[in-house]
Amino acid sequence: MSSVSVNADRLLGRLRELGSIGRDETGRLVRLAASDTDKLGRDRLVDWLKGAGLEIAIDRIGNVFGIWAPQGIDAATSPLMLGSHIDTVINAGMFDGCYGVLAGLEVIETLKANDFDPARPIVVGAFTNEEGVRYAPDMMGSLVYSGGLDIDAALATIGTDGSVLGEELERIGYAGPHEPGFLQPHAYLELHIEQGPVLEREGVPTGAVENLQGISWQKVTIKGDANHAGTTPVSMRRDAGLAAARVITFLRERAIASNTPTVATVGCIEFEPNAINVIPSKATFTVDLRDPDEERLLAEEAALTAYLDRIAAEEQVTISTERLARFQPVTFDSGIVAEIEAAAAGRGLRSRRMTSGAGHDAQMIARIAPVAMIFVPSIGGISHNPKEFTPDADLIAGANILLDVVRKLTTSRD
Amino acid sequence: MSSVSVNADRLLGRLRELGSIGRDETGRLVRLAASDTDKLGRDRLVDWLKGAGLEIAIDRIGNVFGIWAPQGIDAATSPLMLGSHIDTVINAGMFDGCYGVLAGLEVIETLKANDFDPARPIVVGAFTNEEGVRYAPDMMGSLVYSGGLDIDAALATIGTDGSVLGEELERIGYAGPHEPGFLQPHAYLELHIEQGPVLEREGVPTGAVENLQGISWQKVTIKGDANHAGTTPVSMRRDAGLAAARVITFLRERAIASNTPTVATVGCIEFEPNAINVIPSKATFTVDLRDPDEERLLAEEAALTAYLDRIAAEEQVTISTERLARFQPVTFDSGIVAEIEAAAAGRGLRSRRMTSGAGHDAQMIARIAPVAMIFVPSIGGISHNPKEFTPDADLIAGANILLDVVRKLTTSRD
Repeated sequence: MSSVSVNADRLLGRLRELGSIGRDETGRLVRLAASDTDKLGRDRLVDWLKGAGLEIAIDRIGNVFGIWAPQGIDAATSPLMLGSHIDTVINAGMFDGCYGVLAGLEVIETLKANDFDPARPIVVGAFTNEEGVRYAPDMMGSLVYSGGLDIDAALATIGTDGSVLGEELERIGYAGPHEPGFLQPHAYLELHIEQGPVLEREGVPTGAVENLQGISWQKVTIKGDANHAGTTPVSMRRDAGLAAARVITFLRERAIASNTPTVATVGCIEFEPNAINVIPSKATFTVDLRDPDEERLLAEEAALTAYLDRIAAEEQVTISTERLARFQPVTFDSGIVAEIEAAAAGRGLRSRRMTSGAGHDAQMIARIAPVAMIFVPSIGGISHNPKEFTPDADLIAGANILLDVVRKLTTSRD
Repeated sequence: MSSVSVNADRLLGRLRELGSIGRDETGRLVRLAASDTDKLGRDRLVDWLKGAGLEIAIDRIGNVFGIWAPQGIDAATSPLMLGSHIDTVINAGMFDGCYGVLAGLEVIETLKANDFDPARPIVVGAFTNEEGVRYAPDMMGSLVYSGGLDIDAALATIGTDGSVLGEELERIGYAGPHEPGFLQPHAYLELHIEQGPVLEREGVPTGAVENLQGISWQKVTIKGDANHAGTTPVSMRRDAGLAAARVITFLRERAIASNTPTVATVGCIEFEPNAINVIPSKATFTVDLRDPDEERLLAEEAALTAYLDRIAAEEQVTISTERLARFQPVTFDSGIVAEIEAAAAGRGLRSRRMTSGAGHDAQMIARIAPVAMIFVPSIGGISHNPKEFTPDADLIAGANILLDVVRKLTTSRD
């Protein structure tokens, strides 16, 4: 079955259909975790999983699994797990997450249709609340599954709308009986759109993702004096807004000068009193630092701290920081990454090793199993946006590489 | 009557009493223009004016005047006008504006009590809506009075609460019969707290205000791309937030390097989508530029425009600007300024010539009459805040200087 490929029409058709579920009155795609629209998407997915002859298993955090356990395999044999998520942000695109879940299903159906006889079960999973928009933290379903967050604490999470996650899962019928982690994966593969511009810019269709950036999120609060914009000479100012601007430019200059993959982003900012003729007495902003190397990430954090000390002295302001999130970089399984490269080459496709700049369920499952990811190009690097787009040919190519790697990893029990 | 001084207890008592009128349930002083609390303040002021034997005149925009026209003066003789305003911002201090009005009244009462015989009428005025919090623009009453804004247009102004100014003035009983400008001042004097830190820092009790800064307010909008903070290499970003930060630091560096009185302030900022892990696609901020010299102000505006062009190219963003307000610098009457310096010296007080960084009714009345202002220190430069404070001794000294200048300007009809 060397020439087997996925059913392109079936995969693309399902992607579009799932992308049509959960549109609001203005046409925006919104399937927040454990919401009514998430239920509609889950119901459709379960129908497809059942239609493919898979056994449905749902765990207590609402992760949905479709299990293909061919007869004759020892019940204790650990499965190869494929997966991603189908919850979305507000006003989402239709590829983020859904592509990995539906491509996993597509791979299983293709193998079944071609009478492939896997040496271990193959499972496709859709993890709950990867986006973290309604309930924090993000990647919650896979985090709970891998033992990184207590299931009862997760179920008690209060959402931005005041709802309780556990109650919402009960309400939509996805509070399952299985304990998270009930299936111990032999390995885990996640196919995903890049959500960045690198593959498209370089004209490479396949990313063999070898690691995932460490993430450091901090909130910085700078306090100065709210004096009158007209009457306070520049030399007498304690301008919290100016101090914030200096930090933002420092971070960019440092990232440009460093010649490393470090990225630094200030995405949120707020001034107080935020009046046109008042010097800001308070500036609050977030700093998102990422690097695939833990030592470099620590060095970036230290450099920021040192610069904040310097600014506090120079601008006569007081500065405090609060850690919002911190994840160490994750290194994926080099053997599986090499299989991805080999599979791309086998299909005559160029590939490149790369780092994931976004968080993915894969990084959580990496706590309990060997993991790697496959990326396909995102046009313009756009994601979390209705303009999120990957051409059909790239989507199909990615699914076929997943197919080939799955075959490779389940041909024997080694 | 060379040793005459104002009645300190009376002036300070009235200041405190007026400052107690219009407190809300949390103790904040709020007398927004033409509101119920503004009426209470106006009513108290009118009582005091009447008690001093002054004729009350109210014009159509609600400006309140107390007129002392001694017998024997030709009815056509133009008056010396003193004044300021008694409306406040939200959570105001008790000195801004009120000090100038009550000191003007105090000077008239003192002169009357000492049988001073002025060569022209002396008027004290309280102008409507100087603060501009409820109705835009600020300094409205004096602007209308000096012919800079049509009275009917002003009365039709819609407030932030949806109210119509003209209807509110009717409702509170301060829509008077006189046409604005009905009294043509011979000259106008305004005594005011500095609202800046210069006098206190320098230990000088008296400011002889010789001009008022020109003001340029712009709103700058920068548009880039909202890409993912983790997956977008620094070199591929179009970061509107970074571009904004560069503009803020540029303005400060330029102001510090210029060795001029130029001040530049960015008081308001907003990022979109304002998410911690998304590069800002849009940054909106305000620029407040001030300078007492029109040519320099024009040069600062031009430098900002040039820098925005440079940033647009370097950061691959698009930038648009909107003019929110523009006032040319106002030069006060050098003869009156010299009289203020002489009066301070006569009282054995140090004085310094200075520029007003804030807007005042004086700048509007300067359109129709010779004008100057007297400043007294503001502790910490704080204003528009309950912490606004000027020591009693400075308040009394300022009122006595006003007294002496008024005597000087009304001793003869020259």
